[in-house]
Amino acid sequence: MTSEYEQWLDFAKQLAQDAGKLIVEAREKAIFDRNYKLHHELVTSTDIAVDAFICEKIAAMFPQHKILSEESFPALDVNQLIEDVPVWVIDPIDGTVNFAHGHHHVAVSIGLFIGSVRILGVVYAPFLAECYSALRGQGAYCNGKKLAVSGASTLRNALVATGFPYQKTSLPNLIERLSRVLHACQDVRRNGSAALDLCWVAAGRLDAYYETVKPWDMAAGALIAEEAGARLGYFAKPQVVWPEAVNGEGLLVATPDLFDDLKALL
Amino acid sequence: MTSEYEQWLDFAKQLAQDAGKLIVEAREKAIFDRNYKLHHELVTSTDIAVDAFICEKIAAMFPQHKILSEESFPALDVNQLIEDVPVWVIDPIDGTVNFAHGHHHVAVSIGLFIGSVRILGVVYAPFLAECYSALRGQGAYCNGKKLAVSGASTLRNALVATGFPYQKTSLPNLIERLSRVLHACQDVRRNGSAALDLCWVAAGRLDAYYETVKPWDMAAGALIAEEAGARLGYFAKPQVVWPEAVNGEGLLVATPDLFDDLKALL
Repeated sequence: MTSEYEQWLDFAKQLAQDAGKLIVEAREKAIFDRNYKLHHELVTSTDIAVDAFICEKIAAMFPQHKILSEESFPALDVNQLIEDVPVWVIDPIDGTVNFAHGHHHVAVSIGLFIGSVRILGVVYAPFLAECYSALRGQGAYCNGKKLAVSGASTLRNALVATGFPYQKTSLPNLIERLSRVLHACQDVRRNGSAALDLCWVAAGRLDAYYETVKPWDMAAGALIAEEAGARLGYFAKPQVVWPEAVNGEGLLVATPDLFDDLKALL
Repeated sequence: MTSEYEQWLDFAKQLAQDAGKLIVEAREKAIFDRNYKLHHELVTSTDIAVDAFICEKIAAMFPQHKILSEESFPALDVNQLIEDVPVWVIDPIDGTVNFAHGHHHVAVSIGLFIGSVRILGVVYAPFLAECYSALRGQGAYCNGKKLAVSGASTLRNALVATGFPYQKTSLPNLIERLSRVLHACQDVRRNGSAALDLCWVAAGRLDAYYETVKPWDMAAGALIAEEAGARLGYFAKPQVVWPEAVNGEGLLVATPDLFDDLKALL
């Protein structure tokens, strides 16, 4: 099966980079509209267009596979999933607010899992021209260079990323956690793309990352971080809504030496 | 005098870009050591080397001018300043933690003030190849393109940047303020370079920025933001430690329509 997975990975890398071109072009020409989903969550016409582009390509290439996508297929009947059906998990633009504001921290995220196993992940940052990828058991790479997490082992010198939800009801708990992290760690980053935060842990640019996110935000980046040597788990007991391989509720990813300390802190 | 100021601005732009080359080279070759100042504040040997490079060039070109620099001249006897002596305010690497961690959000900041007037500012981001600059009364530019703040007018859709101090004693107040901003605004960014945050307000990538920073963090970026149409002031009554033109205590920079609402919120 490995060589088939490698072909799927090559397909996903090409697809993410093609999608990235659409994203850069849309911003250069400023040809996108802005709308708001529930809870003031921004969605642009480029999110929709790139989602359609990616989903069509996957459906054409792999008609038997399923798709779980932020914009077009945000629901999936978990009970109907059978173990050997590959599921592609797509975020056409992770970091939509950044995209609309002209920031660089924007990514296309394409992951694939089968049953409870993450098979492959690709995260492409079109404005930084960085393509992160991983295949289970074969390490994580960025533009062909092998990735490894940082050697950070103490909280006091740890650089930790997190995110803030669009929905404001969960803010009090979130601010409590953030306060503990700010007191104990070197500093916090809030870059605005969960998929890239995970890849930056993989690349050693961040020592840890925690947030509650959706499957499409983390499906690809989680495997990339794991394959670079990060430890992945949960700082809070997750509600069982999604298959385990794409469950982003209370997600914590850190260097192995930091994980337990951070989990206790959070 | 204007044409003399224009010459000074050209000198500062070239100097910032030359310094940026040293920064990129140091990171590519990983030829820097890390040390910690008071309060666990990181400083690398590249901060020191680039600071020396910039200060030598200024001293050679303008022997009568004074220099206020994060690394080599962090103190200046304010009482000895006379109104017509130009003072260069330097941060060789704004975003040192980002620099050491391989992030892109890193800048060289070079400002100049005379008495209480900001004359010019240059902020160069070497990993993004963006050179921001402003001359008093003549607008703000990035790579030759004129900048203007966003049209943001309501807190609910405002994207606000801030920073967190290395010193942990002021954290409780800071977290209180952050909580109010997170509840009221669209989202918060913590990118890790005050100078670039100010430029990003100028460019409309952020709608506002607030933080307590040092003169070298804000001297150049403050003028760039002002010249792009931002309103600049203070969310807290500043202690008078530095000349007003470089006082970063309780700094608030925002689109004109957001300023009063944000000041009241903070």
